[in-house]
Amino acid sequence: MRILLIGATGTLGAAVHKALAGRGHEVRTVGRSAGDLRHDITDPAGVTALYEAAGPVDAVVSAAGDVPFKPLAELSPEDYLAAFHGKVLSQVDLVRQGIRHVAERGSFTLITGVLSREPIPTGAAASLANGAVEAFVRAAAIEIAPQRINAVSPSVFTESLADYGDYFPGMPPVDLADVARAYVRSVEGAQTGQVYELP
Amino acid sequence: MRILLIGATGTLGAAVHKALAGRGHEVRTVGRSAGDLRHDITDPAGVTALYEAAGPVDAVVSAAGDVPFKPLAELSPEDYLAAFHGKVLSQVDLVRQGIRHVAERGSFTLITGVLSREPIPTGAAASLANGAVEAFVRAAAIEIAPQRINAVSPSVFTESLADYGDYFPGMPPVDLADVARAYVRSVEGAQTGQVYELP
Repeated sequence: MRILLIGATGTLGAAVHKALAGRGHEVRTVGRSAGDLRHDITDPAGVTALYEAAGPVDAVVSAAGDVPFKPLAELSPEDYLAAFHGKVLSQVDLVRQGIRHVAERGSFTLITGVLSREPIPTGAAASLANGAVEAFVRAAAIEIAPQRINAVSPSVFTESLADYGDYFPGMPPVDLADVARAYVRSVEGAQTGQVYELP
Repeated sequence: MRILLIGATGTLGAAVHKALAGRGHEVRTVGRSAGDLRHDITDPAGVTALYEAAGPVDAVVSAAGDVPFKPLAELSPEDYLAAFHGKVLSQVDLVRQGIRHVAERGSFTLITGVLSREPIPTGAAASLANGAVEAFVRAAAIEIAPQRINAVSPSVFTESLADYGDYFPGMPPVDLADVARAYVRSVEGAQTGQVYELP
């Protein structure tokens, strides 16, 4: 399949790239400042330009989302808006504009994260953003069929425990390869409206 | 208890008002153009003014949230932003600014809705908003303790079936009295971080 991968330069994006390429797919990477196609998907005009440049595709997979982490008392309305633009509206717009460019039975796979269901201190904006995307995925699925849409919602990566493990005490981590496998499942499988919770 | 009720003029707000008053609470109603205190909670300055006018309170309960309903293909970035401001950020700001004004063991009760888990066509922005608020509630709970926060997430009201029933074919409705009871549970009970799904 011809696949657009947004956020390919990140830890997760690289693993997803490897997994999808390993399955024989033609993966085109998208990033703000790196990748085959350079567009800022937090700007609707950037999403428009991306799809114009990419032409028809079979799947759009996103591994990109920025949200601020701060104690709740320090999170401002601007921080919540930044989370909304950085992880919610950006991915929603990939779907909204992508419907016309993705194959009739193509798919969208968005990234969320464990904080939608298992919160941590400083993570309220991230939780909010993840919860928003997961509910959107369930809702969009019933309107875009036969196109499909799923979310991948991982815990902290095993490979990132050295950097972020202290924020997730006692929470089961997940290997990047397992997260990448969930993207393969979403792209090649037939399910829609699913949130693949990992582990 | 001394309780601020936002959105008291709506169908739900009126039922919540009746239930809380019936339990002997001192309820002060808040609305944009009606109520004991008139403030626009979609504006952070309005929330500031509300809390300054209200003085110390034991509980803040919200029955207010506006979101646009449109087919997915017609929902624009502006529509999603309107849903975010109208139902998510407005309620988040009630909590953010309310922490300083609500009693040490006081509570916040926010409104979401069944569309976070059971979508309907035209409801993607509503689903997104509800999912955001529910995840925020779980996250905020662990940071604001011993203050508490819960969400009430009802299906279509039995009393509204004549107007909205066609949008919820075969979905179990819920009596307003049962939804109002969930607010009482949130206010008088000891739980936090809960999403009370009704029915």
